[in-house]
Amino acid sequence: MSYPKLLALAALCAACCGPVRAQETPASWVDPFIGTIRMGHTFPGACVPFGGVQLSPDTSTVPHNIDGVYQGEVYRYCAGYQWDDPTIVGFSHTHLSGTGHSDLGDVLLMPQTGERRLEPGDAGQPGSGYRSRKDASSEHAVPGYYEVLLEDSGVRAELTATERTGLHRYTFPKDSLRRMIVDLEHGIYNYDGKTLWAGIRVENDTLITGYRLTNGWSRENYTYFAATFSRPIARYGYKDRQKPLYTGFWRKFDVEHDFPEMAGRKLVAWFEFDSSEEPLEVRVALSAVSTEGALRNLAAETAGKSFDTIRSEAFAKWNDALGIFTIEGTPEQKAMFYTSLYHTMINPSVYMDVDGRYRGLDHNIHTADGFVNYTVFSVWDTYRALHPLFNLINRQRNTDMMRSMLAHYTQSVHGALPVWSHMGNENWCMIGYHSVSTLADALAKGLPLDRELALEAMVSSSNIAYYDGIDEYRALGYVPYERSGSGASMTLEYAYDDWTIARTAEQSGADSLAEAYRRRAMSYRNLFDPTLGFVRPRMRDGSWKEPFDLMETHGQGFIEGNSWNYSFYVPHDVRGLIDAMGGDRRFVERLDSLFTMHLPDAFFANTEDITRDGLIGNYVHGNEPSHHIPYLYAWTSQPWKSQYWLREIMDRMYVDAIDGLCGNDDCGQMSAWYIFGAMGFYPVCPGSDQYVLGAPYLPHITLRLENGRTLEIKAPGVSARNRYVRGVTFRGEKLSRMYLTHDELMQGGVLEFRMGATPDRRRGTAAADKPASMTK
Amino acid sequence: MSYPKLLALAALCAACCGPVRAQETPASWVDPFIGTIRMGHTFPGACVPFGGVQLSPDTSTVPHNIDGVYQGEVYRYCAGYQWDDPTIVGFSHTHLSGTGHSDLGDVLLMPQTGERRLEPGDAGQPGSGYRSRKDASSEHAVPGYYEVLLEDSGVRAELTATERTGLHRYTFPKDSLRRMIVDLEHGIYNYDGKTLWAGIRVENDTLITGYRLTNGWSRENYTYFAATFSRPIARYGYKDRQKPLYTGFWRKFDVEHDFPEMAGRKLVAWFEFDSSEEPLEVRVALSAVSTEGALRNLAAETAGKSFDTIRSEAFAKWNDALGIFTIEGTPEQKAMFYTSLYHTMINPSVYMDVDGRYRGLDHNIHTADGFVNYTVFSVWDTYRALHPLFNLINRQRNTDMMRSMLAHYTQSVHGALPVWSHMGNENWCMIGYHSVSTLADALAKGLPLDRELALEAMVSSSNIAYYDGIDEYRALGYVPYERSGSGASMTLEYAYDDWTIARTAEQSGADSLAEAYRRRAMSYRNLFDPTLGFVRPRMRDGSWKEPFDLMETHGQGFIEGNSWNYSFYVPHDVRGLIDAMGGDRRFVERLDSLFTMHLPDAFFANTEDITRDGLIGNYVHGNEPSHHIPYLYAWTSQPWKSQYWLREIMDRMYVDAIDGLCGNDDCGQMSAWYIFGAMGFYPVCPGSDQYVLGAPYLPHITLRLENGRTLEIKAPGVSARNRYVRGVTFRGEKLSRMYLTHDELMQGGVLEFRMGATPDRRRGTAAADKPASMTK
Repeated sequence: MSYPKLLALAALCAACCGPVRAQETPASWVDPFIGTIRMGHTFPGACVPFGGVQLSPDTSTVPHNIDGVYQGEVYRYCAGYQWDDPTIVGFSHTHLSGTGHSDLGDVLLMPQTGERRLEPGDAGQPGSGYRSRKDASSEHAVPGYYEVLLEDSGVRAELTATERTGLHRYTFPKDSLRRMIVDLEHGIYNYDGKTLWAGIRVENDTLITGYRLTNGWSRENYTYFAATFSRPIARYGYKDRQKPLYTGFWRKFDVEHDFPEMAGRKLVAWFEFDSSEEPLEVRVALSAVSTEGALRNLAAETAGKSFDTIRSEAFAKWNDALGIFTIEGTPEQKAMFYTSLYHTMINPSVYMDVDGRYRGLDHNIHTADGFVNYTVFSVWDTYRALHPLFNLINRQRNTDMMRSMLAHYTQSVHGALPVWSHMGNENWCMIGYHSVSTLADALAKGLPLDRELALEAMVSSSNIAYYDGIDEYRALGYVPYERSGSGASMTLEYAYDDWTIARTAEQSGADSLAEAYRRRAMSYRNLFDPTLGFVRPRMRDGSWKEPFDLMETHGQGFIEGNSWNYSFYVPHDVRGLIDAMGGDRRFVERLDSLFTMHLPDAFFANTEDITRDGLIGNYVHGNEPSHHIPYLYAWTSQPWKSQYWLREIMDRMYVDAIDGLCGNDDCGQMSAWYIFGAMGFYPVCPGSDQYVLGAPYLPHITLRLENGRTLEIKAPGVSARNRYVRGVTFRGEKLSRMYLTHDELMQGGVLEFRMGATPDRRRGTAAADKPASMTK
Repeated sequence: MSYPKLLALAALCAACCGPVRAQETPASWVDPFIGTIRMGHTFPGACVPFGGVQLSPDTSTVPHNIDGVYQGEVYRYCAGYQWDDPTIVGFSHTHLSGTGHSDLGDVLLMPQTGERRLEPGDAGQPGSGYRSRKDASSEHAVPGYYEVLLEDSGVRAELTATERTGLHRYTFPKDSLRRMIVDLEHGIYNYDGKTLWAGIRVENDTLITGYRLTNGWSRENYTYFAATFSRPIARYGYKDRQKPLYTGFWRKFDVEHDFPEMAGRKLVAWFEFDSSEEPLEVRVALSAVSTEGALRNLAAETAGKSFDTIRSEAFAKWNDALGIFTIEGTPEQKAMFYTSLYHTMINPSVYMDVDGRYRGLDHNIHTADGFVNYTVFSVWDTYRALHPLFNLINRQRNTDMMRSMLAHYTQSVHGALPVWSHMGNENWCMIGYHSVSTLADALAKGLPLDRELALEAMVSSSNIAYYDGIDEYRALGYVPYERSGSGASMTLEYAYDDWTIARTAEQSGADSLAEAYRRRAMSYRNLFDPTLGFVRPRMRDGSWKEPFDLMETHGQGFIEGNSWNYSFYVPHDVRGLIDAMGGDRRFVERLDSLFTMHLPDAFFANTEDITRDGLIGNYVHGNEPSHHIPYLYAWTSQPWKSQYWLREIMDRMYVDAIDGLCGNDDCGQMSAWYIFGAMGFYPVCPGSDQYVLGAPYLPHITLRLENGRTLEIKAPGVSARNRYVRGVTFRGEKLSRMYLTHDELMQGGVLEFRMGATPDRRRGTAAADKPASMTK
């Protein structure tokens, strides 16, 4: 199944609407709808690169649970939206991009005409609430701009954004009553009581402020806002769905009408405006600090600028951000490349007011000292390719992200770097302490960080006794199965993370520390069952888990993978891994099998997140633990096989279609993998300065580096047929190695691949050409 | 019924406990237990003058409502405590003093030995929770210090305080397990869900931080805290009464034990300490800004000081504050005078961190620019005597209180000065806009305020169309009965308030504004039914309310009073009032009747707040609207009658006993009345600079004024018998006037009353000697 693309239609609309979308600019190739049905979990709305506001339509109001019973549908709505839903419930200001868990959806606005309806209503019953059917043919989006015609009200809705402000433009039918709903209970991952408290103040007839405190995936999420209307409010009022509104002592006020402040647990407000020829514009600035902060953000970012100016600026920001790459390829490849790049620049997001103040992990208000504070760290995903990509293309941003992580550490009562952190909270999702990897990679690649603080944070994060079996990991060398049903995955990931600490300690001259972590980094061996040559969960007493099935995943020792996938997870010691598996021949056979084995149907019935579309054999591209595996052939006697499978993945897992993503985009990790895949190399082991060569995907890529140099990647004639690398030159010199170093790439120059329809089976097989490995 | 005094016992204890309580200092006369049973609603715990922490035992856990049904008992527990309750549930850090509505009780601590019990338990079932019986004979308190022996655990609890920190010292039985309960759900005026959210962080083994957000009478009350223990925490844990505790993703933590952060709606934590010879000390600093603010407050106020040092300092602060008065009198009179003075110096309370930051009415964090921010403005009560008293004895404090009110105004979305404001919220309790009176009085008495801003705030506050019928008051000249069942009371109070605005406008040279408000100030006349000479509620069409009963109160046109009381409520135009009532003779007859009439029993069955103890005839001293009435004789042909009734009130309504207050102390208003009563004059019409002479109560009072001068009030031989004033001299000159001006008093000098057992019926009867009146 593949949904039709809207790109052509979008281009048509853009032509009518003005000059903001010029063809052939990088941003014009982006299709924000890619990934917005099924597993992609992306959103189509408006944001600027790494902006703190993601203003986007929500289509679902399915609660997270009803009377304690989990409603599975909420997983589909991690970004609040599925393209094929027929109705839109409104436009809210915060969205996660591509995650596998849902949250946010703060401050929902919805235009309305006719009868006042303050409930969202039932998607199956048009007219039952403020929700409206959408005219699907009218829906279009480009980076920083989204529009749709709401069928029920006849209102045309347009959205654009700055870093901290969402801008709405609503064109109502002529002479209609014009009403805006502001729903402070609505949310993504909602449940009865998620909004702990919310409030609104009508400061004057064009300005409102307010806030809400929610207890969602982000345990305590403070969202303050300030909103201006382009026309004076004529009438307004509120409803509290939970209880009669606060009425002051002895109910002395008519608080439901024209009373300028209200607060409650389930608050919805409405504002009516006299009819006018002009569209109604609303500008909503957010802050995690205070309404005062939101007002400052609003003024700093939007004062004196029209909606169209800000829309143009948003598009220009995307062109600037995406324009570091110039590429050649088919229209589909260009759409996929720039949309992927676009998806790498949404999360992490700015989480700081224009004056540098932000809400820290301790929920105190801090002032960022010389950096921009970011949030949304889906580290288990993004340490693999996203942050390494930033070390190449967004070094200033990543420096600030790393400083944000270090600020998180200094504010953590656990002494922990982020695990999965968003909106000033740690949600502890997934496993490992992979922020140590992102820091090690950043240090290895020369970002200007406080090395001493970073090393302290890394050591501290890896020694939190009560976190996911670290105490037993340290004592036994593995996390026993009794302790956690993900113990084997944890052990493997800890071992890799520990290697990144060892490397950082080594570079810092902390020799004994380095040695201690090198020992910890070898812990992966404790789980290789020598009779199988596979990783197998182990019990506290040292015995192996019984029964044991290589295919079993969640709760059976693994998470988002099984022994087949996780047994390849030793990125820091591939040489040692090959030995543990029984040598080169057996290792290559295993890799081959992974990509070609046939999975039984029962497997899919028992696993979440995975469909056949996201698999090649038992290789699961839709989940992250396998992302490095196609490159592991580089260490073997048959490097050319990487080139075969990489092309398969690029072609089959990334399709220029609304349902074109094979799994959650995971805050850009999937997309970052694609960008590396297109360039022909990959950071198999972040923390190392090596990129392992795969195969380029496009005939020509030019990357403008932040240091002013240019990296050109040429692969004339590359195609599905000509997928094999027959020779490589870098800066004019022949390159027989299977890797490039970061410093080499940062020099810029031309990396040229000679491609062919048949593999060069000898290339890269010499020991001297192999990428690094902890064990020689 | 009168409960035994503990003063002698307390003195005894103090003698054992050390030198902090020297006899014959002003603070040593204070008995914090006065008013702690029945209607007084005072609390016995520890605080410093105007301190933001009031650390005191709570005895009730009666919820505000159960399943929506109001539990009347909560009115008894406005300060969380009734002395005759046999058990104590714990010690919390915030208490209102003497109010008629309950709230606060933030951050409850309770020591425990033996079995871990995390529920407060049932007062009727000792041992059913962490509540403990108290050893009543062990309970004692002096200003800034409280102690009690908890019978069930054998723990001796001692409390003291600084402005922002509560200090606890718990002496456990030898070798017992030592556990502290920290209950963040407990509160005064509690109900299921009052605590919207609460959190704790165990920062290290002697420091915790935390906060809670409550939706009580204070709509959104943010209480952050930081607490240090004198011994390391050995073990700790939590329980969330509402739901399983947040466990991180996939319940990866054992969060009930030794996990350093927790949050929830109904959170209770426990901390265990190894046994030790030393008592366990806990220091809990509060902040309305942040935990960071609380930590700063803790360090600034307590670093390097022992519990006993802070206890001594607290007592010394009270001696300094109370020591502005030196008095002669019986021990009972001294106890009553200094306890009253003590009760005038609890609310309003400091609401600001040591660095000047505070949470404003808009819930943004503000920095006080050159003033100390105060909260707890029970203005309907305190504009009468408390703030006028401050203008005489606490001018710097009152300047800051007025600036706090102006800050409230600038932060108010309504453009309103405080009505009844506490903890950064407006609760709108009671009627009128009496902050205009407090500002007018402050300006009339020379406090250095921004006169322009003050006048702007006064005009704005008196013109909020949707507030309590102001729109109709402006249009009709009264608040019609259809609009409010308190409409007559409102009209009378608005008229007085408007006079204070007129006077301020006049003094500011805003003549037309002054004229407009002088017209509004005459509105009281619109409610005088000429056929009755009494105030009578009026309908929108101008007709009088039918049926009408002079005795009816709440909802029948009046609030906390009836037509009998309220008909005397024209403090700014007593001359005009006398005319409206039918002239001097009839007016005096009415006053006489008020004090002597017999009320039917049915009256008490139908009214709250009032018992026979609080009445003299139909004169209700326990409620405020009558407080000026005894002084109204000064305008008549029989001024001496004031002298008679004032002595009755002083003797009968203020008794040196635990149940010695005849009504709610109302944040010090009742007590401030007493201090004026003792001095022999009273601010009948705040905003005027005149104090109307009554009769002195003590033979000698010396008041040290802030300007360095001394006011001496002598009344040799004064007694219940010698209650009549036979002559007055001021600064050596004969004073025939019935009033003194503020400037005169501020010059200092000797005010000497010649007293006798029979009245001087001619004194003060000449027109020239009468106090001011709007109508001549």
